[in-house]
Amino acid sequence: MSVVRCHQAISLDGFSAGPNQSLENPLGEGGERLHEWMFETAAWARMQGLPAGRPETPDSAIVDEIASDPNVGAYIMGRNMFGGGHGRWDESWKGWWGENPPYHRPVFVLTHEPRAPVPMQGGTTFFFVTDGVASALRQAQAAAGDRDVHVAGGAHTIQQFLREGMLDELYLHIAPILLGAGERLLENVGEPQMTPVTVVASPRVTHIRYRIDH
Amino acid sequence: MSVVRCHQAISLDGFSAGPNQSLENPLGEGGERLHEWMFETAAWARMQGLPAGRPETPDSAIVDEIASDPNVGAYIMGRNMFGGGHGRWDESWKGWWGENPPYHRPVFVLTHEPRAPVPMQGGTTFFFVTDGVASALRQAQAAAGDRDVHVAGGAHTIQQFLREGMLDELYLHIAPILLGAGERLLENVGEPQMTPVTVVASPRVTHIRYRIDH
Repeated sequence: MSVVRCHQAISLDGFSAGPNQSLENPLGEGGERLHEWMFETAAWARMQGLPAGRPETPDSAIVDEIASDPNVGAYIMGRNMFGGGHGRWDESWKGWWGENPPYHRPVFVLTHEPRAPVPMQGGTTFFFVTDGVASALRQAQAAAGDRDVHVAGGAHTIQQFLREGMLDELYLHIAPILLGAGERLLENVGEPQMTPVTVVASPRVTHIRYRIDH
Repeated sequence: MSVVRCHQAISLDGFSAGPNQSLENPLGEGGERLHEWMFETAAWARMQGLPAGRPETPDSAIVDEIASDPNVGAYIMGRNMFGGGHGRWDESWKGWWGENPPYHRPVFVLTHEPRAPVPMQGGTTFFFVTDGVASALRQAQAAAGDRDVHVAGGAHTIQQFLREGMLDELYLHIAPILLGAGERLLENVGEPQMTPVTVVASPRVTHIRYRIDH
């Protein structure tokens, strides 16, 4: 059955980005520490074309799943994640990811500014949705068919999906760090009914997949 | 080796108590939901003298460990946990737990008001420490000998121990709920270096034991 799901790295004190996010520092101060466990994996080395040799750990398998899950048929992301939240967005802006973005599928970008679809190399096409999250979800589900819809982020977009009861699965990657300040993920999201269904542990991070019942 | 450790139930959004804590509602509004997983265990039924028959789950084994770990030689708790934070504390007050408290060991209570030790039935004696957490720890370690010191709570006391670098192990029991407001555990605690060393999962709660390196 097709589900709507997302992955998010958070600190143990609940932040999905550090303070003072900016164009130069989209993860906020210290925010890169949320992802350090990821940078150490074999999957990351493959994605970045780095030398092989890192071990195939459970963390690495999860990075593979985040990066290119064959069960995902479409992505949804917020305007900030695409790059439009920092005054950078004009018609020439095609996201942070170069000519061949890592999505390889339709990506529905939430925004208030209409724009024609932007086809990229490798199967990614950015579509721009101006009439809200429910519309974005309908379009993404239509594009995904039997496959899942992955809500890629950022935190504000995930919060909207949680609040509207439109997310079926939240997979948190809890880094054993405290950021102390920044953007909290689980704030203003209503009262989702969550059940932890999968837990994967390593000394670097704890992965908990929550099913959300509606 | 003797270590200083604590157990704490928290919500997925980081609260160890709900809002508006009071004498009538020491866990705050909704705070009892943090502990629901515990109330369902065989260990809890044993402690409360309830009918037997609940399964011996991993959650139950953890409740046994929290309640009566033979490796613990002494407890430390804050004034609020003992009952003095709500205007209730006079010389007749001997804690919330009746004549035979569940500690059965020396308990060092942090306070600003000197008071003679209070011996209770079953091996519990409450000692009152007026010169700070470091002194409480020294006294508790002397009483515990080769055994561990358990910092029982509440959140404010655990925060002090974290901030002062005096906690070796933090065992969090993460309930899959959002409280939205209340008392945050991991706030104003400095930057402890934490490593998850044990993870126990159930559909009701995720237990993560963090080692803290100094």
